[in-house]
Amino acid sequence: MGGSVEDGEPMSSSNFLDPAKMEEFGAAESAERDPESHSSMQQPLLKRHRTLSSVPLAMVGAKVSYIESLDYEINENDLFKQDWRSRSSAQVLQYIFLKWALAFLVGLLTGIIASLINLAVENLAGYKLLFISGFIEQKRYLMGFIYLTTANFVFTFIAAVLCVCFAPTAAGPGIPEIKAYLNGVDTPDMYGAMPLIVKIFGSIGAVSAGLDLGKEGPLVHIGSCIASLLGQGGPENYRLKWRWLRYFNNDRDRRDLITCGASSGVCAAFRAPVGGVLFALEEVATWWRSALLWRSFFSTAVVVVVLRAFMEYCGSGKCGLFGRGGLIMFDVSDVTVTYRAADVIPVVLIGVLGGVLGSLYNHLLHKVLVVYNLINQKGKLHKLLLSLAVSLFTSGCLFGLPFLAKCSPCDPSILEACPTNGRTGNFKQFNCPAGYYNDLASLLFSTNDDAVRNIFSTNTTTEFHPLSLTIFFGLYLILGLITFGIAVPSGLFLPIILMGAAYGRMLGMAMGSYTNIDQGLYAVLGSASLMAGSMRMTVSLCVIFLELTNNLLLLPITMLVLLIAKTVGDCFNPSIYEIILHLKGLPFLEGHPEPWMRNITVGELADVKPPVVSLRGVEKVGRIVEVLKNTTHNGFPVIDDGVVPPVGLSDASMELHGIILRAHLLQVLQKKWFLSEPRRTEEWEVREKFTWIDLSERQLNIKDVAVTKDEMEMYVDLHPLTNTTPYTVIESLSVAKALVLFREVGLRHMLIVPKYQSSGADPVIGILTRQDLRAQNILNVFPDLAKPKRREKKN
Amino acid sequence: MGGSVEDGEPMSSSNFLDPAKMEEFGAAESAERDPESHSSMQQPLLKRHRTLSSVPLAMVGAKVSYIESLDYEINENDLFKQDWRSRSSAQVLQYIFLKWALAFLVGLLTGIIASLINLAVENLAGYKLLFISGFIEQKRYLMGFIYLTTANFVFTFIAAVLCVCFAPTAAGPGIPEIKAYLNGVDTPDMYGAMPLIVKIFGSIGAVSAGLDLGKEGPLVHIGSCIASLLGQGGPENYRLKWRWLRYFNNDRDRRDLITCGASSGVCAAFRAPVGGVLFALEEVATWWRSALLWRSFFSTAVVVVVLRAFMEYCGSGKCGLFGRGGLIMFDVSDVTVTYRAADVIPVVLIGVLGGVLGSLYNHLLHKVLVVYNLINQKGKLHKLLLSLAVSLFTSGCLFGLPFLAKCSPCDPSILEACPTNGRTGNFKQFNCPAGYYNDLASLLFSTNDDAVRNIFSTNTTTEFHPLSLTIFFGLYLILGLITFGIAVPSGLFLPIILMGAAYGRMLGMAMGSYTNIDQGLYAVLGSASLMAGSMRMTVSLCVIFLELTNNLLLLPITMLVLLIAKTVGDCFNPSIYEIILHLKGLPFLEGHPEPWMRNITVGELADVKPPVVSLRGVEKVGRIVEVLKNTTHNGFPVIDDGVVPPVGLSDASMELHGIILRAHLLQVLQKKWFLSEPRRTEEWEVREKFTWIDLSERQLNIKDVAVTKDEMEMYVDLHPLTNTTPYTVIESLSVAKALVLFREVGLRHMLIVPKYQSSGADPVIGILTRQDLRAQNILNVFPDLAKPKRREKKN
Repeated sequence: MGGSVEDGEPMSSSNFLDPAKMEEFGAAESAERDPESHSSMQQPLLKRHRTLSSVPLAMVGAKVSYIESLDYEINENDLFKQDWRSRSSAQVLQYIFLKWALAFLVGLLTGIIASLINLAVENLAGYKLLFISGFIEQKRYLMGFIYLTTANFVFTFIAAVLCVCFAPTAAGPGIPEIKAYLNGVDTPDMYGAMPLIVKIFGSIGAVSAGLDLGKEGPLVHIGSCIASLLGQGGPENYRLKWRWLRYFNNDRDRRDLITCGASSGVCAAFRAPVGGVLFALEEVATWWRSALLWRSFFSTAVVVVVLRAFMEYCGSGKCGLFGRGGLIMFDVSDVTVTYRAADVIPVVLIGVLGGVLGSLYNHLLHKVLVVYNLINQKGKLHKLLLSLAVSLFTSGCLFGLPFLAKCSPCDPSILEACPTNGRTGNFKQFNCPAGYYNDLASLLFSTNDDAVRNIFSTNTTTEFHPLSLTIFFGLYLILGLITFGIAVPSGLFLPIILMGAAYGRMLGMAMGSYTNIDQGLYAVLGSASLMAGSMRMTVSLCVIFLELTNNLLLLPITMLVLLIAKTVGDCFNPSIYEIILHLKGLPFLEGHPEPWMRNITVGELADVKPPVVSLRGVEKVGRIVEVLKNTTHNGFPVIDDGVVPPVGLSDASMELHGIILRAHLLQVLQKKWFLSEPRRTEEWEVREKFTWIDLSERQLNIKDVAVTKDEMEMYVDLHPLTNTTPYTVIESLSVAKALVLFREVGLRHMLIVPKYQSSGADPVIGILTRQDLRAQNILNVFPDLAKPKRREKKN
Repeated sequence: MGGSVEDGEPMSSSNFLDPAKMEEFGAAESAERDPESHSSMQQPLLKRHRTLSSVPLAMVGAKVSYIESLDYEINENDLFKQDWRSRSSAQVLQYIFLKWALAFLVGLLTGIIASLINLAVENLAGYKLLFISGFIEQKRYLMGFIYLTTANFVFTFIAAVLCVCFAPTAAGPGIPEIKAYLNGVDTPDMYGAMPLIVKIFGSIGAVSAGLDLGKEGPLVHIGSCIASLLGQGGPENYRLKWRWLRYFNNDRDRRDLITCGASSGVCAAFRAPVGGVLFALEEVATWWRSALLWRSFFSTAVVVVVLRAFMEYCGSGKCGLFGRGGLIMFDVSDVTVTYRAADVIPVVLIGVLGGVLGSLYNHLLHKVLVVYNLINQKGKLHKLLLSLAVSLFTSGCLFGLPFLAKCSPCDPSILEACPTNGRTGNFKQFNCPAGYYNDLASLLFSTNDDAVRNIFSTNTTTEFHPLSLTIFFGLYLILGLITFGIAVPSGLFLPIILMGAAYGRMLGMAMGSYTNIDQGLYAVLGSASLMAGSMRMTVSLCVIFLELTNNLLLLPITMLVLLIAKTVGDCFNPSIYEIILHLKGLPFLEGHPEPWMRNITVGELADVKPPVVSLRGVEKVGRIVEVLKNTTHNGFPVIDDGVVPPVGLSDASMELHGIILRAHLLQVLQKKWFLSEPRRTEEWEVREKFTWIDLSERQLNIKDVAVTKDEMEMYVDLHPLTNTTPYTVIESLSVAKALVLFREVGLRHMLIVPKYQSSGADPVIGILTRQDLRAQNILNVFPDLAKPKRREKKN
């Protein structure tokens, strides 16, 4: 009989994973992996229409990988129970202490690494700009241009080579993959030492190269990598064999740690401890417990302390050009925020604009990513060339466009130095004569963080010309679209903040004297609205902005802007993260079922799947090998027949014992735990051979396991390794309810049991996995379900 | 056969619900309700030890009520499906729009009512104090004392009479009941119009009476009442019959609305919109969705806007004595927060102290509440007398104790008026000569909100004497303990804030010149630590304090204090809300299963329960009436026998059709939807008689339904009213996993299906409810489970 098809993604034209290209990427095994090719193994009992098929491939970073589901469900087999029972209370305390110690370390290391990245970026980009300023002062523009372009080219080259050759999974922000991981999808090579190192140095290179990307997304990935590495005791081949750490070598604890890591990353990016926790809660994490809230809060608190200490240390000029920590701080504390009822109109306008522009940006980015994917799929060289082309274009624009702006005279009433020629400063002289400044150069000829600070600057009503802002907005719209998809570590936050600030400030100018809200505030609100319009978060963004601006009086208008922008954006398309998840083919499971899912039962889904492949409690080795070779399923029901019925019943014949994982079967084969005759084993026998820790090994493949012909005729007692407490659903349950169960409890396999009682029947009539419950996959088989008036149900 | 025992609380000596007193409260039906008394109806198939018994009574407010579980699971019967299918997309849009409109109204009304309460309290308490100040100025202390005592007595009397006679459920803060409601426990008479009105006026009375309680908890309850009333379209007997509202007349939508209401209440209490949402998330709500986060955020945004508008309107003196809105605002914005590494020592000290004192407070309050309960159970008069006695004691202390304090000379370098004799002011003259002030009177002879403001005041190092603060701390510790349990609306936040501020400030004084943290800041940190030590929240408290102090630089030390205080407190006892929930006998279901729950299966639980009472798909009226009369169960499995087996099977005989609720059976009986012969009905037949809305009616009782003898012989087709998609678990599932499923999905009944297949067997072998999964109830039957080394399991 058949079984559970695990993990994949249906084909669609707008997909990163082009079906025609599939052979290229590890789909050589597809013939063997296709559930259809072995459906003749046993004839199905029930009639079958089309089958629910799926391809377990997805784009992780910039690499197509074979993905799997994670085991968040506790595998309650005999070994687990025995392991749990053998833990003394001292060990339990150890475990709790270690959990907190790891949360502390995650915060500490994330904070330190974030500080070092800031230090490196500020110094690299700073000295680069200083050096080129020298040429500009001497009016040697061409030399300046050549040096700038070369420097940016080299930085981009380093970042791209690292990403392309050493860790393709480190490209992009990493947040969609983390979101999928916390939803239960294992993305290989995502949290190792190599992606961490590449992400750190790649991010330094890419940001120093002046590309239109931020270090915020990568920091979230860095935090998650640190968390995962700490939980595992180190990188793949150099693991600490420390006894204490063994309790963390499972998917559940790693999930919790990665949640802490993601919170720490956001906190390190924005210096927003509460915002970091809320971001992880609202956007990234699927499951959440109160204890986890508290632990990730602890991690972010540590991050903040580290950042603060570092900034204090560097405050006295010991860190080269490292100034204000490279952290975006919208310093609006010197603005007296007063607003009247009339100010609600521009605020609403910003919100609506943010929603419209945000969804438009999502739409365009989607298209660009599809095109980029075609280019990137052509090979490593194409990826590299694409990145370098973007770098050249960026350098050209950043250097060339300021020449379009007119020089403005310095306003002597402003205390700040004007014009400046150094690295920072709001009034860059650039090509202007003394006493004049180039407003566009203030935005373009500086690091992105400085640009944000300049455009947010308050009490500088006349600083920027509308034309300069228009050029800036147009440029960053284009750069934001073409930069995100290249093979370097790139965050989405910063491009969106810059774009939003530009149109916010433009709107503020257009409003003129109508309101007395400062233009810097308009810029902040513009950023908030575009972020809400594109990312569709509310509470966490609100708190991040609150922590950044440090001004509670802004809260009501920020909330208003965010709510409007999100509402407007939701009318057009899903959030940018959802779009990327879909593009990457990551099978993310939404929490909210579609309404039509109430009209189909899990039994109907089971009918269109290959029949279940189940194993006997005491099974022949040959059959196990055959099943493992011929299917791709990761879980098999274990069924006992001929069992003694309970008192009062006469003919009980089949009994569900539980479900066994492929990984555990492979362990049995590899350790050759075979019996010469079919019998039940004693507890000590299995304990001698396996420990609970052995079972968390996932790397084995059936091809690596050699079984002799004699051994094929031997037996295995699967009972002690079987998870005896699988979650089951009755066949008449609606898919909507099954989805809620699957997602809320964090399942990998869901067994379907019959609603009738019959001695001849199999106690399991199907297995559902993540893929089977995805709306798109169901609609492929039952296309008329989503139609408003579907055919009346059978009964 | 038996069935599901619903909702109650096991007996324990430390329980509000004294078994000896049980007869007094509606337990006249106990003989009929006791599941044991009808166990002879049919002999159980399996052997039975002790049974899992529970009493469905709990303390709601100050009233013992019969509680029920809520139906958060969607009841997917034919009527629901048809109702859903008949909704056009316009109706769906209507529904969404209405959801947001209701969230808006919840925020608006909560904001307005909170403002009016503040207005009333400030004026009532203000004029009271002004009037008495007159006597003190004339040195007519006895007259002042008599007037103060009389005024407080009258205010307390009004509040207590309202609570005792009209709405006993309005006593206390209401937060534990809301927490239980959102966990799935229906607490009757909790969210009606009467509790709302009593809570509003009772809260005004109690706060004006100078009792040591706040309006924060009651505001949360008020917000929830408003939300519930809006969702239902008005109070019980005067409901709007508006067609649009009918979609909200179900437990799920009401749950969401009440979550918004609770968030709005917290927001109105502290003017903390983000803190309000997080409080609801961290402390109150059990289930949470991203969409709900967003909607409650919208509600709190509306509240903030209303509060702000109101304060602006009143700012120009139009509202009598209403000054700063009666909202606690720790105005520390004029303090330059600088702290060094050495400051970490006092901060840690405050945290540890907060944890120790908080858990001690929890412990003492527990004892006091048990004693109070004995008094309150004696009847209405006793409740009233207790409240009045506390009022007299409070008045005596508030007026008498300031005479113990020495008069201090006014510091001429401070700009504030000194001494003052009016209502507000930090330096009250009281009994002192001109040019001197009484520091204890500044704290005691003012409203609680003013006291908080005074004790938090910054840059006033020498204002308070240690002796005065010691007296204040001791007094408020005693008042906090004796006031909370009396029958008036009372919040816990304010007493804890006052106590915490006192010892925080004392610690600041003791530290002297060791740190340069302001004493006002010490007071704030002391409050935060005591709240964390008693209520055990972290993130939401942190945000509330952040929003109150409006100073982001405080964040790291606040976080440190909160984390330490919570950790220390958790070592001693559970949070105050958990203690109260337990005392009240509300069956709150924790999210985290106990470790020993992995060692027991749901099948073992089913064995110690009365057997399942199930109904046939087409059942005789007589049997339904008999079952409803003889059991207290609220759900019955519906089983079809003799069904045609699926292809390939020969002898399928019993099939689970679903589960039907008692409320729906009662509807059938009342509407007399009987058939003369046993047959399946057509869809139009049921549609003629019932609508989906009818089924949400819950008020019917079997005693109110008259069925004639002839009708007893007729039949009912239960199929169309049966929820065909119940969640089921297999008997071998561990209780730990069943608990996770039950809580995460929000169930009321969980059907246990057998793991074997046998044609003679019942497809349902048990039903579990909330009570059966509570750790305490299970341990009552299996006391050896929790022991570290339990007997080896059978197999």
